[in-house]
Amino acid sequence: MAEDRHAMWQDLGMDLATHDQLCAVLPQAFGDVFLSQKNRPEGMAFWDMVVADIHGIRPAELVEAQKKGQKVFGTFCTYVPDEVVIACNGIVTGLCGGSQFWVPEGEKYLPADVCPLIKASLGARLGKTCPFFRIADEFVGETTCDGKKKMYEILASDAPTYVMQTPQMKRPKDIDSWADEIALLARNVEEVTGNTLTAEKLATAITTINARRRALARVYETRKNPDIIPISGTDALLMMQIAFFDDPIRCTEMANNLAGELEQRLADGVSVFPAGTKRILLTGTPLAIPNWKLHHIIETSGAAIVCEENCTGTKFFTNLVDESASDLPGQFHALAERYMKINCACFTPNTARIEEVLDLARAYQVDGVINTNLKFCTTFKVEAPALESALEAQGIPVLDIETDYTDNDVEQLRTRVQAFVEMLGE
Amino acid sequence: MAEDRHAMWQDLGMDLATHDQLCAVLPQAFGDVFLSQKNRPEGMAFWDMVVADIHGIRPAELVEAQKKGQKVFGTFCTYVPDEVVIACNGIVTGLCGGSQFWVPEGEKYLPADVCPLIKASLGARLGKTCPFFRIADEFVGETTCDGKKKMYEILASDAPTYVMQTPQMKRPKDIDSWADEIALLARNVEEVTGNTLTAEKLATAITTINARRRALARVYETRKNPDIIPISGTDALLMMQIAFFDDPIRCTEMANNLAGELEQRLADGVSVFPAGTKRILLTGTPLAIPNWKLHHIIETSGAAIVCEENCTGTKFFTNLVDESASDLPGQFHALAERYMKINCACFTPNTARIEEVLDLARAYQVDGVINTNLKFCTTFKVEAPALESALEAQGIPVLDIETDYTDNDVEQLRTRVQAFVEMLGE
Repeated sequence: MAEDRHAMWQDLGMDLATHDQLCAVLPQAFGDVFLSQKNRPEGMAFWDMVVADIHGIRPAELVEAQKKGQKVFGTFCTYVPDEVVIACNGIVTGLCGGSQFWVPEGEKYLPADVCPLIKASLGARLGKTCPFFRIADEFVGETTCDGKKKMYEILASDAPTYVMQTPQMKRPKDIDSWADEIALLARNVEEVTGNTLTAEKLATAITTINARRRALARVYETRKNPDIIPISGTDALLMMQIAFFDDPIRCTEMANNLAGELEQRLADGVSVFPAGTKRILLTGTPLAIPNWKLHHIIETSGAAIVCEENCTGTKFFTNLVDESASDLPGQFHALAERYMKINCACFTPNTARIEEVLDLARAYQVDGVINTNLKFCTTFKVEAPALESALEAQGIPVLDIETDYTDNDVEQLRTRVQAFVEMLGE
Repeated sequence: MAEDRHAMWQDLGMDLATHDQLCAVLPQAFGDVFLSQKNRPEGMAFWDMVVADIHGIRPAELVEAQKKGQKVFGTFCTYVPDEVVIACNGIVTGLCGGSQFWVPEGEKYLPADVCPLIKASLGARLGKTCPFFRIADEFVGETTCDGKKKMYEILASDAPTYVMQTPQMKRPKDIDSWADEIALLARNVEEVTGNTLTAEKLATAITTINARRRALARVYETRKNPDIIPISGTDALLMMQIAFFDDPIRCTEMANNLAGELEQRLADGVSVFPAGTKRILLTGTPLAIPNWKLHHIIETSGAAIVCEENCTGTKFFTNLVDESASDLPGQFHALAERYMKINCACFTPNTARIEEVLDLARAYQVDGVINTNLKFCTTFKVEAPALESALEAQGIPVLDIETDYTDNDVEQLRTRVQAFVEMLGE
């Protein structure tokens, strides 16, 4: 039984009665999706513990850190460089945005035809039903899509919000421009934290976050084995989702522990799926916690997800920051170069994403790709046909799924996924 | 009877049979909306003639110009600086995008939940049913919204397309960045036209386009008179819509002619609406030709539109380019400064737009504002509540209308507009 956190939530100004409704349903949802799985890696016990008290354990740590003078920065996007915040002794946290629970509140302020992630995020803040959204000293947004860009204007009327201008293209001058935005963020973080950024501190932070990238990539590496699937996609997703919230050093340690166990499973021939289970690469829009909908449907329909090409997957850890720069301008540029390699659909053109997905399909030896889109995510949706055509041209079957956070379409999706998986077996 | 243009359309590779369907309905639509109006300014005869042969007169001129070696650039947005194209002896033309006729074709390639302007534009190109989309040697896009930004990727697979990166903010460095984009566009236009840009030629082009701005503004100026409304909003809109297509020098001459006539009407007390007609400021998303839907509904519901705050209205001509710069870098910066004053919802924050709308409401002495949004235009839609609250805080009534190009909602809109106009009279 988790510790009672109501006093903390009250101190955070949360709407306790409404939040209790969420707390009442989350354990059941978690149990249905996760605990029903067989032969889970022992290393998942850490993430099970965290998620069992998702609005308690980490928020309590953040509150304690704030009491000691640390500042907390809430971020929405893998484009915001954690390194800059950490180097100023700040803490980065992910934010709530993955449940239908927060959507109706968001729709009070945003049009219904905005993606559920954006509506849930704003709803979680304005409805006072997310501790992370209460704790953060500042929110750091970016201009990666119209919906978020304009949502931040509403958020800014309620809380300190800093927005970075993400380039829309990837020319050399755009990388320079992103480096400049990172320098501006650094100045902002210095102001908020009261700490001065130095090249030495930033170098340490870069090393820390690169280590996290390596650890998460090490877990993913074990999923490439063509015969043994040592971890479900559902469990891997949970690790990734919580990586946005956790202390990066602990995240690295836990991911490395898990990777060690998975590597042993490969040596021992321990798979969580029967031999011959169809291997799926999931591509598209991010899956914020507790959005486990598609993973659960797919992995209870006779297939296994062996890779997630999205911001709660490979985009979070692929490519390291070059650690050789020794001064801040050089480090800002090295950060910009790494972050600008993320193939977000916000860029035009975004053909490198197609190459990356084809590479992932080969590297993870998948039988098919399920390309997903959160409803009303224009950028990913418009480029989907080009991606899907490129996959089909390589003989890789693709299923396109557009969905949101509701359960309305679960049975329909299950039917479609089952038909797709059956087709892969023919 | 207009000249038969079928030979030209065939040479342009158009789908004649489908295009004939459009040609068959347009005169009726034009007649219903325009020719039913009483006491129209004589100066409108020019625009009536142009629109009666909208896919003939100007396309024929463009084809002739191309035969003499001039290049035609199709543009989608008031942010693309005509001056640079004109200075290289190029021609800028607007493109088709204002009718439901083109939407189904666009929906073959784009999701249905993208704004009708974007779907119609792509549909007009790929369906081969718009001469301007066939004639243009190059299309020049911009990153003003997710839908257009990603649509250009599809367009680029079919035709030469150059995209400018519009900034997402309006800090001094963003103005510099836009100046840099204008310089890059200039290089592209030099390549396409084969002509070298000089400061002298650009200075002439700046003067030309400033003159057009002054002429269009002069027409609008006459609409500020609180007692006499010398021109309907419907007619003023037609002038604005065709300004995107016409030769800028002729446009200037015709607008000045019209302005002279309207000024005389003010002196003579000639109004096209009865005394006491409620004055409306229309704000929001652009109205591409032949989108006359809202103007027709509003002006046949007892109100008059006296100003359009959109890209087919004040945004097209407000603010002149500083003509004092004498070299290209200075001129590019002057252009950037002027264009960056357009308060597009693509910017974050976009609070200057609220101030501008309040100023327009005062200057045009309006009784109410109708704030419109094309379905699925996220940027304008998300900022609408802030704009509308600011107006209401000043005691200015606002009606919010979201619509598309179909006729499905016409009667419902008419009922809402009539109720709004009646309320203004209370």
